[in-house]
Amino acid sequence: MSIILDGKKVSDVIEKTLRRKIKKLSGKLKLSIILVGENSASLKYVEKKQEKCHEIGIKCDVVKLNPDVSEEALLFKIKELNLSKSTTGILIQLPLPSHIKARKVLDFIDVKKDVDGLSSYYLMKILFNDEEIIPATPKGIISLLDEYKIGLRGKNVCVVGFSDIVGKPLVMMCLNRGATVSVAHVLTRDLKLHTSNADIIMTATGTPGLIKKNMIKEGAVVVDVGISKLGGRIVGDVDFENAKSRCSYITPVPGGVGPMTVISLIENLILLSKQIK
Amino acid sequence: MSIILDGKKVSDVIEKTLRRKIKKLSGKLKLSIILVGENSASLKYVEKKQEKCHEIGIKCDVVKLNPDVSEEALLFKIKELNLSKSTTGILIQLPLPSHIKARKVLDFIDVKKDVDGLSSYYLMKILFNDEEIIPATPKGIISLLDEYKIGLRGKNVCVVGFSDIVGKPLVMMCLNRGATVSVAHVLTRDLKLHTSNADIIMTATGTPGLIKKNMIKEGAVVVDVGISKLGGRIVGDVDFENAKSRCSYITPVPGGVGPMTVISLIENLILLSKQIK
Repeated sequence: MSIILDGKKVSDVIEKTLRRKIKKLSGKLKLSIILVGENSASLKYVEKKQEKCHEIGIKCDVVKLNPDVSEEALLFKIKELNLSKSTTGILIQLPLPSHIKARKVLDFIDVKKDVDGLSSYYLMKILFNDEEIIPATPKGIISLLDEYKIGLRGKNVCVVGFSDIVGKPLVMMCLNRGATVSVAHVLTRDLKLHTSNADIIMTATGTPGLIKKNMIKEGAVVVDVGISKLGGRIVGDVDFENAKSRCSYITPVPGGVGPMTVISLIENLILLSKQIK
Repeated sequence: MSIILDGKKVSDVIEKTLRRKIKKLSGKLKLSIILVGENSASLKYVEKKQEKCHEIGIKCDVVKLNPDVSEEALLFKIKELNLSKSTTGILIQLPLPSHIKARKVLDFIDVKKDVDGLSSYYLMKILFNDEEIIPATPKGIISLLDEYKIGLRGKNVCVVGFSDIVGKPLVMMCLNRGATVSVAHVLTRDLKLHTSNADIIMTATGTPGLIKKNMIKEGAVVVDVGISKLGGRIVGDVDFENAKSRCSYITPVPGGVGPMTVISLIENLILLSKQIK
């Protein structure tokens, strides 16, 4: 019988601790989100982050920019927020339109306000095993595993998907914790060969049903970062209904990694507020 | 029958092309090496680099510092070389004594003179698949494979060893080229499980005989970065004599990755000289 890695429950527990910290900071925290364009998934994510902030007593502004905004205008907006005394953390909702260089934009955020930890500076620190501000999704995944006392040291981990936002930092964080890591992606020829050796599978591709029951080792832990719409339902990368009986632990979608990502963002905001003082 | 990946021969071919380029630069190239302490392996490596520079018409100075030199004094020396008009590239021979923070020192080198490509700046560029100056050993490995037309796209690569200098950039470079990569290291429980699935094994641990014949898939390519002394002989990580019959291609030690590393360093120096102008 598999145990559900309940991201909703764990994030609620973390939230309780954070509420106390936030109270002490007496309304001094403010998250500024920049949203370029009207991608419906992005709108949804931004809404969730804003809701959680308000729920928990943190100010949250959303700056909406047109999809055809120039890179220069976007950088100017970031500069304003970098200098703003009221903004604690700046988040650029990804993806950005293709005419904008995401790397340049992310590195333009003052690292003291980089709440998403996606600047080269923080990613480099992760690469050198000197973790400081960690991107919210990988941070949430590790917190979730920690809560269920699932260690990484000496484990075989297969990370599927190698994006700058999730896969890359996740791979490095697993290596930092002593895991043997296999990195699979869209060019991997025999995905099953890699997943079926893994004690822990972490998948972040956005391809519904990619990870099937027969690709999972008996008793493995499965973490599903994928979020896709399929027939009106929100589903992950894993064929959850069939696969779950084979796993020792598995995250549901929704209610697994999602809530952990949001709460990890709030944790980062509090960390940043301490740096500013 | 396996084919020897002849680093000596390939580096000689590259050297011929480089000699022409160096002639055009008419004696304007200079490599400055800083050697802290008297580690015998480090002395040997520095000697080889210096010899190759002189052979090929490049000035090469070695600054020798006492093993108890302060970090401050070392940084001051680097600052001098950063400002020196005659120095094209600066190389800090690693490892540094434990009282010195290697990361801080490597990041103190002006990136325009970072011939070893070990600054956070260049490693970050590799992580984002925007390779510019690449650390000499991984660069040499990829050049050697290129020369034998051994592609990485879609291949299963197992990298054994995850050092900042070799393993980390090598893993990223293999991923940039579309390989599925398994990263094994000292905490890996069942190394054979990972090596035996690999089309290409790259090992950089310094443990003689770690990779045995029965751990290698029939027809795999084996790249051995290890260099150790054993009974008066220089040996790699691979049990070469027994393993070679099982491989399609294999690097010898010495004469494999070593000469490729040295020539890649010279290539980097020429690249840097172009940036300065």
